[in-house]
Amino acid sequence: MLIQTLKGFRDFLPAEARKRQYVINTLRDVFASYGYDPLETPTLEYEEILTGKYGEEGDKLVYRFEDNGGRKVAMRYDQTVPLSRVVAQYQNELPMPFKRYQVQPVWRAENTQRGRFREFLQCDIDAVGTTSPFSDAEILAIISDSYEALGFKDFRIIVNDRSLFTNLPPKAITVIDKLKKIGLDEVKKELQELNVSPEKLDSLLSSKIPENLQTIIDAAKELGVPEKRIVFEPTLARGLDYYTGIIMEVEVEGYTVGSLGGGGRYDNLIGIFAGRTIPAVGFAFGFDRVVEAMQEQNLFPEGLITTQVMVTIFSQELLDNSIEVTYKLRASGINTELYLDPQAKMEKQLKYADQKGINFVVIIGTDETKNDKVTLKNLRTREQKTLALEEVIKELAKASN
Amino acid sequence: MLIQTLKGFRDFLPAEARKRQYVINTLRDVFASYGYDPLETPTLEYEEILTGKYGEEGDKLVYRFEDNGGRKVAMRYDQTVPLSRVVAQYQNELPMPFKRYQVQPVWRAENTQRGRFREFLQCDIDAVGTTSPFSDAEILAIISDSYEALGFKDFRIIVNDRSLFTNLPPKAITVIDKLKKIGLDEVKKELQELNVSPEKLDSLLSSKIPENLQTIIDAAKELGVPEKRIVFEPTLARGLDYYTGIIMEVEVEGYTVGSLGGGGRYDNLIGIFAGRTIPAVGFAFGFDRVVEAMQEQNLFPEGLITTQVMVTIFSQELLDNSIEVTYKLRASGINTELYLDPQAKMEKQLKYADQKGINFVVIIGTDETKNDKVTLKNLRTREQKTLALEEVIKELAKASN
Repeated sequence: MLIQTLKGFRDFLPAEARKRQYVINTLRDVFASYGYDPLETPTLEYEEILTGKYGEEGDKLVYRFEDNGGRKVAMRYDQTVPLSRVVAQYQNELPMPFKRYQVQPVWRAENTQRGRFREFLQCDIDAVGTTSPFSDAEILAIISDSYEALGFKDFRIIVNDRSLFTNLPPKAITVIDKLKKIGLDEVKKELQELNVSPEKLDSLLSSKIPENLQTIIDAAKELGVPEKRIVFEPTLARGLDYYTGIIMEVEVEGYTVGSLGGGGRYDNLIGIFAGRTIPAVGFAFGFDRVVEAMQEQNLFPEGLITTQVMVTIFSQELLDNSIEVTYKLRASGINTELYLDPQAKMEKQLKYADQKGINFVVIIGTDETKNDKVTLKNLRTREQKTLALEEVIKELAKASN
Repeated sequence: MLIQTLKGFRDFLPAEARKRQYVINTLRDVFASYGYDPLETPTLEYEEILTGKYGEEGDKLVYRFEDNGGRKVAMRYDQTVPLSRVVAQYQNELPMPFKRYQVQPVWRAENTQRGRFREFLQCDIDAVGTTSPFSDAEILAIISDSYEALGFKDFRIIVNDRSLFTNLPPKAITVIDKLKKIGLDEVKKELQELNVSPEKLDSLLSSKIPENLQTIIDAAKELGVPEKRIVFEPTLARGLDYYTGIIMEVEVEGYTVGSLGGGGRYDNLIGIFAGRTIPAVGFAFGFDRVVEAMQEQNLFPEGLITTQVMVTIFSQELLDNSIEVTYKLRASGINTELYLDPQAKMEKQLKYADQKGINFVVIIGTDETKNDKVTLKNLRTREQKTLALEEVIKELAKASN
């Protein structure tokens, strides 16, 4: 039998899992500061809930099967359709507007040759049930606070309003969306092939900010978003044809793969199950790209190695001292690991600490025991000091700030 | 089309999702304080990785299907088999002992009539690659710290050693496991039916603590576990026949559904993919039961309502004041929600805050604006005060401690 991870899927070993957890926690704190609430929906849905919602191409990518009871079921493909179901199913219980965030994996049977994964985390915020421009502005403010909290120094929220495209056919919108990639001349050429006058692009490029969008931007500024962060770009189109108002994308300086998230107002989608129009505005963080960009730009704090110190075991006879010190360190709020094998040589113990990325070890040998002290060794600088335990606690607390 | 959650599956609306998040965060902090690292494995595995690992009954409950590419795949059924795969696959990268925690959903096609769910969260800690009794002791210490951190006042860790059952056939162990449920006489009767002398039960009941178990218990005490919390029960059996040393279960006073978690040492399981013996000891928190027991015993903090205050909108004219106050409150670290619809009546706004469980609202009317003050209203006590914004910030910070 081949011992391997399923094609298109990933294991996250500790170093990677910790980074992902850090991003999730950071975002959750921002969402909570705006009164956004968590929602979780199940991995499996009745197939009919999902089919027909993602277009012909999307439908093919939905993981679906018949369960043991002969039910046709499908795996979560996005978080918007389940949100629509929840809004319909619990409409008498949910406060409106319903402002929720959702951070769960989704599954898509994508072609892995394009470097895509078949399981990835989605991280969405949506305000459902209001057309108020302040809900749009609030989304902009959350975006601004979020990327800032993650440590990005130089990022822009590109915004536009779908109303600018009212007189353009959907295919022309797709062409204009490629402007940054293929350039002005090529876009004009392709528009001509669609019998769309290239002058339409020129007039689009000289568009003024629509009034509604200006109201949103003004409110976002009042909510603390720095002026330079919001950039109006009349050719920003975003592929999805369900947007009805503001659209937005986040670009980070120096990260060239693409946008780190996108969203907009979509007033005709959430009501599909409720059978009436339910307006909504939302944003999806590109989770994998955020992690990648943070990695590239060195934005993860060092403190992600959660163990602050490892207590070594000098000898079988002095073992109890190590256990006692471990207990005392941990009781002082220091994340402390006790090396578990009392027979292992000191060298092996230090190698283990090093492999786990632990910065400090404590050694309690014969001399230390006699003098009621412990030795604190910094594995990075190789520096070591013999101190009273209380001083070690102070040093460790200082080192992790 | 019926708008419903798939049978056997659950949605977690905000109030419930917040509780689950609180439990996860609390446990993660304890795990980190012992140097345990997070691990995530994918939802789907090649079917052959999972089949034959859970016994005949278990195999039937595994969700499995053929994907679009004709691969036979299966959904995560537990976290131990994936851990075994990871340990084999990354054996040159992982530090040993590998101490990991894993908090992910698993899927089992259970009979829902028994009140079981088909998707539920598993929360496991395991130390892999060591036979040291200190790894067993550490698990006991983590258990003790965890249930204490969750707020349980009166709980016991029942322990036993599988060596006491060496001379008993597996079926007899299953019978003895039912002692608490069916009583001494019934167990003896059933043992007789298996041709096992009932005296074996008597001698089991008078067993002394085996030496190895005593070593573990002593070390756990040194690691800070209060003596009365660990209770030796020579008839504790636990159904699973893969345990090879210590076994344990957690019982909470007043919660009668059953144990809130269980585990033990299992030295012959983790090596299945690596092709050699890899010892391990671990514990699984019964996540749903923990949440249920905490609910019953009122252990969730009130502060789980993450929004500390909602800023209302008095009138269209005074809207900007509300936005400004919202921004200032949030910038002071107060989780603040702005009511989004500037046309809504005050009554509707207060109702919304009430429905979301928000305790405080801020009102900024004409008088407040004139005097550069705001009114803070406590929705629980109906008390209200008109104060300077700095004092409101102080009051809110105080209220959430």
